[in-house]
Amino acid sequence: MDRLLKHVDVLLKVTFINRKVMDEDMTIKIFVTGGTFDKEYNELTGELYFKDTHLSELLALGRCTLKVDITTLMMIDSLDMTEEHREIIAESCIKAKENRIIITHGTDTMVDTARALAEKIKDKTIVLTGAMIPYKFGSSDGLFNLGSALSFVQILPSGVYIAMNGRYFNWDNCRKNKKTGRFEKVRED
Amino acid sequence: MDRLLKHVDVLLKVTFINRKVMDEDMTIKIFVTGGTFDKEYNELTGELYFKDTHLSELLALGRCTLKVDITTLMMIDSLDMTEEHREIIAESCIKAKENRIIITHGTDTMVDTARALAEKIKDKTIVLTGAMIPYKFGSSDGLFNLGSALSFVQILPSGVYIAMNGRYFNWDNCRKNKKTGRFEKVRED
Amino acid sequence: MDRLLKHVDVLLKVTFINRKVMDEDMTIKIFVTGGTFDKEYNELTGELYFKDTHLSELLALGRCTLKVDITTLMMIDSLDMTEEHREIIAESCIKAKENRIIITHGTDTMVDTARALAEKIKDKTIVLTGAMIPYKFGSSDGLFNLGSALSFVQILPSGVYIAMNGRYFNWDNCRKNKKTGRFEKVRED
Amino acid sequence: MDRLLKHVDVLLKVTFINRKVMDEDMTIKIFVTGGTFDKEYNELTGELYFKDTHLSELLALGRCTLKVDITTLMMIDSLDMTEEHREIIAESCIKAKENRIIITHGTDTMVDTARALAEKIKDKTIVLTGAMIPYKFGSSDGLFNLGSALSFVQILPSGVYIAMNGRYFNWDNCRKNKKTGRFEKVRED
Repeated sequence: MDRLLKHVDVLLKVTFINRKVMDEDMTIKIFVTGGTFDKEYNELTGELYFKDTHLSELLALGRCTLKVDITTLMMIDSLDMTEEHREIIAESCIKAKENRIIITHGTDTMVDTARALAEKIKDKTIVLTGAMIPYKFGSSDGLFNLGSALSFVQILPSGVYIAMNGRYFNWDNCRKNKKTGRFEKVRED
Repeated sequence: MDRLLKHVDVLLKVTFINRKVMDEDMTIKIFVTGGTFDKEYNELTGELYFKDTHLSELLALGRCTLKVDITTLMMIDSLDMTEEHREIIAESCIKAKENRIIITHGTDTMVDTARALAEKIKDKTIVLTGAMIPYKFGSSDGLFNLGSALSFVQILPSGVYIAMNGRYFNWDNCRKNKKTGRFEKVRED
Repeated sequence: MDRLLKHVDVLLKVTFINRKVMDEDMTIKIFVTGGTFDKEYNELTGELYFKDTHLSELLALGRCTLKVDITTLMMIDSLDMTEEHREIIAESCIKAKENRIIITHGTDTMVDTARALAEKIKDKTIVLTGAMIPYKFGSSDGLFNLGSALSFVQILPSGVYIAMNGRYFNWDNCRKNKKTGRFEKVRED
Repeated sequence: MDRLLKHVDVLLKVTFINRKVMDEDMTIKIFVTGGTFDKEYNELTGELYFKDTHLSELLALGRCTLKVDITTLMMIDSLDMTEEHREIIAESCIKAKENRIIITHGTDTMVDTARALAEKIKDKTIVLTGAMIPYKFGSSDGLFNLGSALSFVQILPSGVYIAMNGRYFNWDNCRKNKKTGRFEKVRED
């Protein structure tokens, strides 16, 4: 077993070295779907609403030098997300030429969308992320989560993941705890 | 070669699965050394200075649920960092019971400290990170970098890395571009 | 007429000088009634709500050295403000030992409350103010408006005023323009 | 005496009514001279410096609807302000067609500049203001002070004043307390 682990470790480093060569020219695709992340306050009506995504602003704030390509697929509250919306997201992921994809998404149904994507896509690394507080409200976790999601998506093997609270979760072992607002595993592996 | 890569991929997934079991109880050690990250504005003198670290505040903002243990080793500008300081950091990393360590550090000599650590420590995953703008100045990249560093440190194999600008760099292939303020590779791998 | 104006100017200065003596020991009463000013974002429900007032925080941010005394009368959206609520505000103003009073209030019905107060109170300087964006959302006009209201209340003669957008308005010549979200005069004086 | 005070009060109200007619078309001149207010953090050198003034941004944030006209006279630390600089400011105030003028200024020598202006200008209302924390650093008192200065300048009679900490001070009875960073009277009136 020890020999195997050592073997794995060597292979792991080989893989990382190979991957780094690829990484250099790799573009990360970001699909925007809305969610708390991009909500704004309408000062005339006093209501929260969607205008434009703040992803570019966040990437600039993070002094991010990764190659990214941002496409807004929709701007909706994740409670309003239907199977048709998820179909659009899945199709977009499949058609994208990039193999590493981030999806910004409302937190309430993030796990449902992750599941829908995992059923259809096996050969790409897809990381869903979001925020508990709108970016525009100052005290947002969005910048932290984006830094985290961009890091995980560069390294994790193919699969569908959720990056929240500094962690990554496999799509099939994750839920949002409604009381705490934090993501957690459903069961220990 | 194809068979090897497939083999690697399987082993990689096995490793990730194994690692996940460990991750659950893993504590990440964070050593604070100062740097722009934690600088504050002294409104009486109009000068920048160090008071306390804002790491806990940043982790709370990111709604981070990882187990972390923060120790402030020093609070200095990285231009003032001597070999003695680096010795303290290295010793602290070696003595730490954790295998995954983040070091917050000024950006100007971050690469030098990474080199000093890499010479002495081979069996831990150490990620150095920092900020171009103090956290207290509102528009800081610190929260993004912390999210990124915490994610990389959970997954990268043993070694010393720098996490800045959404990327990770090996200690021996990284420099800060003084004109742009961005980190970059010294050579293509 | 010129002589009169000159006379007024002298008297005006005399008044200011007299007033200044009083000002030194003057406490300004602040009544909090809620409004956008103090709204917060509930990250578990995604809704805006009231918790505590941020007035003390704002005064600290402004390094305000005026003597103020803050009392929260209610924490409601101004669209929910009834005649009973206005009765409470008026009674509180009358009973207050201070002659200079600021009321934080939602903008939608601020003018209505000003009118209700003006009918009952003649001998105090009362300034209503509010915000278009919650203080907690970073880009709030609240701090500006508070600085403005605190300044106007120290100098304006007895009467009921609204301080918004850097201006003061008499209670009987003010409306909120629902399209622009700005306050304006109803007619030229 | 009572009759006199009542007389003054009536005249005061008449004056306010007259003034309001003028106010409507009044433009407030704002002269920018630098100071902490407009300092920024140079992320390449780690030093504080001046770029452009943020006055327009602050006025927009405050949803200010006053007519203002902003001119940048200089962008310097107030410790570097010489008699020549003060000459330029005084000349600019004299030549300005506006009678109500705000000057943004570093806090360290604000009182000195106020004195220099008071010696030369008797017939205008001039209010100097500044900030203890740069506007760009998030937690600035600048927005509060600007709201306050704009309010005082509309109402105070001719003279030179300092507006800081929510108060106004006559130029000849004001000093900055170096220990607390707050402005205070030199003597009771």
